[in-house]
Amino acid sequence: MITAEAYAELIHRSKELGVLNSCAAVLAWDQQTYMPTNGASLRGDQMALLASFAHQKLTDPKIGDLLAAIEGSDLVADLDAPEAANVRELRRSFNRATKLPQTLVEELARVTTQAQQVWQEAKPKSDFASFRPWLEKVVALKRQEAAAVGFQDHPYNALIEEYEPGTTVAELKELFAGLTRDLVPLIRKIANSLKKPDRSVLDRDYPVDRQKVFAEAAATAFGFNFASGRLDTTSHPFCSGIGPGDCRITTRYNPRFFGESFFGVLHETGHALYEQNLPAEHFGTPLGSACSFGIHESQSRLWENQVGRGRPFWDHFFPRLKQTFPAALGEVSRDAFYAAVNDVRPSLIRVEADEATYNLHIAMRFELELGLLSGDLAVADLPGAWNDRVKALLELDVPDHARGCLQDIHWSFGGIGYFPTYTLGNLYAAQLMDAARRDSGGGSTLDGAFRHGDFQSLRLWLVSHIHRHGQRYRAGELCRRATGSPLSPAPFISYLNEKYCPLYGVC
Amino acid sequence: MITAEAYAELIHRSKELGVLNSCAAVLAWDQQTYMPTNGASLRGDQMALLASFAHQKLTDPKIGDLLAAIEGSDLVADLDAPEAANVRELRRSFNRATKLPQTLVEELARVTTQAQQVWQEAKPKSDFASFRPWLEKVVALKRQEAAAVGFQDHPYNALIEEYEPGTTVAELKELFAGLTRDLVPLIRKIANSLKKPDRSVLDRDYPVDRQKVFAEAAATAFGFNFASGRLDTTSHPFCSGIGPGDCRITTRYNPRFFGESFFGVLHETGHALYEQNLPAEHFGTPLGSACSFGIHESQSRLWENQVGRGRPFWDHFFPRLKQTFPAALGEVSRDAFYAAVNDVRPSLIRVEADEATYNLHIAMRFELELGLLSGDLAVADLPGAWNDRVKALLELDVPDHARGCLQDIHWSFGGIGYFPTYTLGNLYAAQLMDAARRDSGGGSTLDGAFRHGDFQSLRLWLVSHIHRHGQRYRAGELCRRATGSPLSPAPFISYLNEKYCPLYGVC
Repeated sequence: MITAEAYAELIHRSKELGVLNSCAAVLAWDQQTYMPTNGASLRGDQMALLASFAHQKLTDPKIGDLLAAIEGSDLVADLDAPEAANVRELRRSFNRATKLPQTLVEELARVTTQAQQVWQEAKPKSDFASFRPWLEKVVALKRQEAAAVGFQDHPYNALIEEYEPGTTVAELKELFAGLTRDLVPLIRKIANSLKKPDRSVLDRDYPVDRQKVFAEAAATAFGFNFASGRLDTTSHPFCSGIGPGDCRITTRYNPRFFGESFFGVLHETGHALYEQNLPAEHFGTPLGSACSFGIHESQSRLWENQVGRGRPFWDHFFPRLKQTFPAALGEVSRDAFYAAVNDVRPSLIRVEADEATYNLHIAMRFELELGLLSGDLAVADLPGAWNDRVKALLELDVPDHARGCLQDIHWSFGGIGYFPTYTLGNLYAAQLMDAARRDSGGGSTLDGAFRHGDFQSLRLWLVSHIHRHGQRYRAGELCRRATGSPLSPAPFISYLNEKYCPLYGVC
Repeated sequence: MITAEAYAELIHRSKELGVLNSCAAVLAWDQQTYMPTNGASLRGDQMALLASFAHQKLTDPKIGDLLAAIEGSDLVADLDAPEAANVRELRRSFNRATKLPQTLVEELARVTTQAQQVWQEAKPKSDFASFRPWLEKVVALKRQEAAAVGFQDHPYNALIEEYEPGTTVAELKELFAGLTRDLVPLIRKIANSLKKPDRSVLDRDYPVDRQKVFAEAAATAFGFNFASGRLDTTSHPFCSGIGPGDCRITTRYNPRFFGESFFGVLHETGHALYEQNLPAEHFGTPLGSACSFGIHESQSRLWENQVGRGRPFWDHFFPRLKQTFPAALGEVSRDAFYAAVNDVRPSLIRVEADEATYNLHIAMRFELELGLLSGDLAVADLPGAWNDRVKALLELDVPDHARGCLQDIHWSFGGIGYFPTYTLGNLYAAQLMDAARRDSGGGSTLDGAFRHGDFQSLRLWLVSHIHRHGQRYRAGELCRRATGSPLSPAPFISYLNEKYCPLYGVC
């Protein structure tokens, strides 16, 4: 078979798999939004069937033959060519899928399904004892997974490859060390400041129907295309990029707290803008897929925090917000509101953490995961290790496991290696925002546009530098091309200092 | 392979196909309800992919081997045994699927997709000329389909088998002749009556949110389980029985007309009660599937018309209706309302027709379809033939093709043979209702329950006599077992006479 034919066949199969996976994405969305309660059992059968079809297609030996026929050919000789990227990433997923024994895949699916159920019941009761044996099973299976996939230096490298290909434990350790070194003193200074924003302005009556209209207006201003997407209500908000022309975000409204839904919608809108601007003609292939979890998170964090918690954003939106919620905000000033949505306060719950303390939650999870996976930390010792780190980093006592090591779902579904992508997202977001400002003629140009409700230039910069590339480059290389530098915590730390020093009268 | 093993394998494959088809059902529901506009192209790819998987599974030669290994064995010697029914119907669908050449299947899909688009544009313009060549193609392909499937007496028999297995042209001709003979004089007498119900009470302000609440209350009273289903809004209402625990109905609200949504919801609820009470343990096999299109329609018609347009139903619901819509119904009496929802008036549009004239619309379509398929009626002559029959049966002039032969979507999607199942549904509904009344201790017992909002006995009778059997018996046999007699138009004609004679002071 000539190379061009082999490549065409490989792409055809990849796209078919993409369409198949997009069917499962519709079902998954439906499950979280509109599926009747009693449909859960059938939905499990449907998802299992589609997953088994997808696994068959992904691991078809013919894929290996096609890859072998293409690799080493002229078509992929230029490593920067689009075809080379498709072949590189399809090889990665084929290898990963075929290296994992079917028995291990099934055992992981079975154990994590049960572990999630156990976790769901154990968490409200702070019952670590009942979750412990399941977490032990999960950790053991993830070690087997790492061994099957193969790794250098640390088994964790095999796991993070699933979320952030090309990133290593060594790099992450360095990033987190630098971050923690700078964050801890900043947070301490803020804690000691006498300036205390009045967060209670967010805890007032915010009628849900108005929250929805307001959030949709902000999402539209950012560039979310409602002809190619939707906003619905769920208990666990997410963004699902089903495929070209169909990207759906969800939120959860709290009628007594403005922040929950609104910043959630901005966050999911950031994810959605990425999905809506991936090149549709490459749908189902790596070139049409998001680069990595970290880059995806950078898009959500950029729009949620860098933009949505910024002063220029509220210069434009606060008068409208006040019109929409006159009862809640009648006497509140823009400055007071801006301070409230940017309040820094060490807290026990990761998902409620502010921009500054958030990454300390991730740093300690990363450290604990390394220990669990290497065996240096026994699952039995996890609660103690958790509580010690919370004390050291955040100066807080953990009153129970629900607000401690049982708070996150990730470990129960086997997502060890996932947490660091949240911090990578925060760091990429700051570095990308700096580059976008620089390329747009300095910070004041973009800010000036934001003040007029114009977010188009920023979106187009992201489309051009991030979205349209799909997986053409790995995350590190994409960052270098977009910003001119490798990833560094410096832009993020500068961003925090510039925001918080005036707010809290510190530095 | 021993028979029991072959049967188990056959059932396993049938259930897997059922789960696969249920995935497509979720996607089809989503397409009609929540899918963003721009998702249409991907949805087409998704549906085509799932359909091709389903076709592969349905026509797998292994199915033929398994069927052959079972047929003639002791397992299916008793033709009334459940296993025999599964094998009988799986054989029928396997034969039908394998007899159709793949090229014909694809050509039909391609032509009917385009024909529907052409029809959609031609209808509002009454432009038969542009639809004509497409209908000619559809008719030619349906003739090829009939020839490939094989038939006795008339090619139409091969087509109706898809919707109403076991029913023949000869039987239908006799049914329609009897019906028309009795209906035409009844409708004429009603037309000449001086009593004219005031239909305008239905054309008032009926706020949509209240319509929804009221319709949900009626559906719940009938026994629709909202934990296993939903009610959503679409432009073309339908019921989708996705599978056990998941059956979804839809409606279209008209804020200025009560009848459209309300009776539509009762209709779809009738379908849904059937789906919700099929035996879940047989899901994906004939024993867990609805008997036929005609029997399905009997369930919707029974709840919509026999119950929902009945006096006892409104004895219970009218006071509640008046409370819900005081502005619209303040001065309207129960009798006036009852007369309005049962007004008989010959009209041009099938879907707006009353219970009496409705079947004349079907009778003429059946006759025309027979002519089109046999070649006795050229597509070019269809508009004239249509208009002649409307004049003869309904004494109306057809002003344009939009209200004439272009009004229905069915022919554009190739659904020749589908229309008769609507009338079969009406006839089965009347005959089943008679039997349910008889078995419940006479008409007054059920009516007394209805007057108190209790529809449970009727639903349980239907579960016991219709729903739980799935495809165990063909429609004719199911009717005999449930009612003691073969299908006859007599109960339907009696029902109409009993309803309309007092209402219009005729007979």
